[in-house]
Amino acid sequence: MAEYLSEFDLIERIRARAEASSGDGVVLGIGDDAAVLAPSPGMQLVATTDALVEARHFRPDSDPADLGHLALAVNLSDLAAMGALPRWCLLALTLPDADPAWLDGFLDGALALADTYNCALVGGNLARGPRNIAITALGEVETGQAITRSGARTGDRIVVTGTLGDAAAALKLDAADASPLGQRLLRPTPRLAAGRALASCARSLIDISDGLLADLAHLLAPDQGARIDCGALPASAALRRALPDPSLRWPLQLAGGGDYELLAAVPVGAELPERVDDTRLHVIGEITSTRGIHCIAPDGTRVETGRSGWDHFGTAP
Amino acid sequence: MAEYLSEFDLIERIRARAEASSGDGVVLGIGDDAAVLAPSPGMQLVATTDALVEARHFRPDSDPADLGHLALAVNLSDLAAMGALPRWCLLALTLPDADPAWLDGFLDGALALADTYNCALVGGNLARGPRNIAITALGEVETGQAITRSGARTGDRIVVTGTLGDAAAALKLDAADASPLGQRLLRPTPRLAAGRALASCARSLIDISDGLLADLAHLLAPDQGARIDCGALPASAALRRALPDPSLRWPLQLAGGGDYELLAAVPVGAELPERVDDTRLHVIGEITSTRGIHCIAPDGTRVETGRSGWDHFGTAP
Repeated sequence: MAEYLSEFDLIERIRARAEASSGDGVVLGIGDDAAVLAPSPGMQLVATTDALVEARHFRPDSDPADLGHLALAVNLSDLAAMGALPRWCLLALTLPDADPAWLDGFLDGALALADTYNCALVGGNLARGPRNIAITALGEVETGQAITRSGARTGDRIVVTGTLGDAAAALKLDAADASPLGQRLLRPTPRLAAGRALASCARSLIDISDGLLADLAHLLAPDQGARIDCGALPASAALRRALPDPSLRWPLQLAGGGDYELLAAVPVGAELPERVDDTRLHVIGEITSTRGIHCIAPDGTRVETGRSGWDHFGTAP
Repeated sequence: MAEYLSEFDLIERIRARAEASSGDGVVLGIGDDAAVLAPSPGMQLVATTDALVEARHFRPDSDPADLGHLALAVNLSDLAAMGALPRWCLLALTLPDADPAWLDGFLDGALALADTYNCALVGGNLARGPRNIAITALGEVETGQAITRSGARTGDRIVVTGTLGDAAAALKLDAADASPLGQRLLRPTPRLAAGRALASCARSLIDISDGLLADLAHLLAPDQGARIDCGALPASAALRRALPDPSLRWPLQLAGGGDYELLAAVPVGAELPERVDDTRLHVIGEITSTRGIHCIAPDGTRVETGRSGWDHFGTAP
């Protein structure tokens, strides 16, 4: 028999746990009409919001700790894609019932990730209704140093962090579980350190939420295109084990979403680190002056991919 | 037959309208991974988030323009309650379908209010699912000058802005419509100028979302109480017309939520303006050293009220 709590008990539960977690610049956290925060001198504010919706982005029986991690990770990934440092976050949580076990699990996942990246949970809202998790993340970047999606030039190297295709493979192989592929889908790592490093050498930057091809399209000007060398697409050991045939991996790596790696256009002359902390950076192609994205196999043939993106109002996958 | 759009068309629609509306300090608005904002020197950031959920806070056939207004107003009211000035907002919108007419109506309501208070819409998220509207509002306040709920002292005057009970009367009289009472329920006015004025004379401040008694309880320390003079409760002309008998008005004014007026504890010595712009300020009672809130009629008798608040996980009203 589940124990149910009042709204105020739930908020108190969140407040107590958020207060115990790390975070600087919090003048006033959860518990008043709004949070009061101290911006750093010389920095601009970077703000983003992303929501997870039950039945659309997760199942009713999804592990709440996975959801807490994922809901914050997708927001931190957006901060990473601007070259920003996380500072604070707010949580608008709609829940079908006041189940403290679900909430505790959710906070386990969200606050562990928040602690890792020094992002304090400073405010929120609780309402009853179909489960919906909206997080707003606030970060900072040195004034004038935010890096956007636009600005790639013909000849720039196309660079990605980490490995691609794991999340899509977990979906395809029905492995949304504790396996290495499953963990990449359920608990993506926002590439914050790599984002900071790329902001100082890349011309444009985005995170790959909807799939490499779909997000690469956002980097391109109307008269630009790209060449992707499929042989250079970084694949994890788990993905290579699960799909030893590269021609079966490429479609997932090109069109599958959910990896939350970063994608950058880096000028040829710029110094590109080989890795940032434990995250490797890989050159996978080049910005071209011909419209369209061409994916080329090592033998020079074109690789065809089924779909190129993800429309949240399109047909469910 | 409704026209339906893709996610990207909808976002483009929001972006174009948000860009055309006012707002300072927006380095980068909607359209990238995150917004980039320029905080004002010497100011602290004030952040809050509030969500409206279909079936809980509004009906499927609610006017989308009313919802756009309300969703932003409840957030701006939280900024008002900190003595802050609105700057920016983000919108996480979950919709059952990509209906541009609904979205346009929603933006009509939200952006008109945003323009009024110079609050730029700088980012957001769109997802498909049960209708859910989560807004995060960001404001600024002079460093160290934010006013909180706590700090009221025995003897302080209890002050409210505007009039009380209109929204509750609209609910009770089934008048959620174009009538003056209905408009107070559907389109509350965030008391931003009054919040700024009260921040400089009050000791503590909160907005009345859940009802006077419930929110007054948040101002009181454990060993404090309050006396409310029911004869001093400000009532609008519309409320007095609808309920000429004051004893029928008082329960709505004391326990009804939704007016989004401000409630302050103001020291006896402090100069209290009679009005701020068009909003009158009323002294309605006093902070006392006895626990409990006592509501007193002009003849000295105690006024009993049914309920004292609103628990979002309690029984629906």
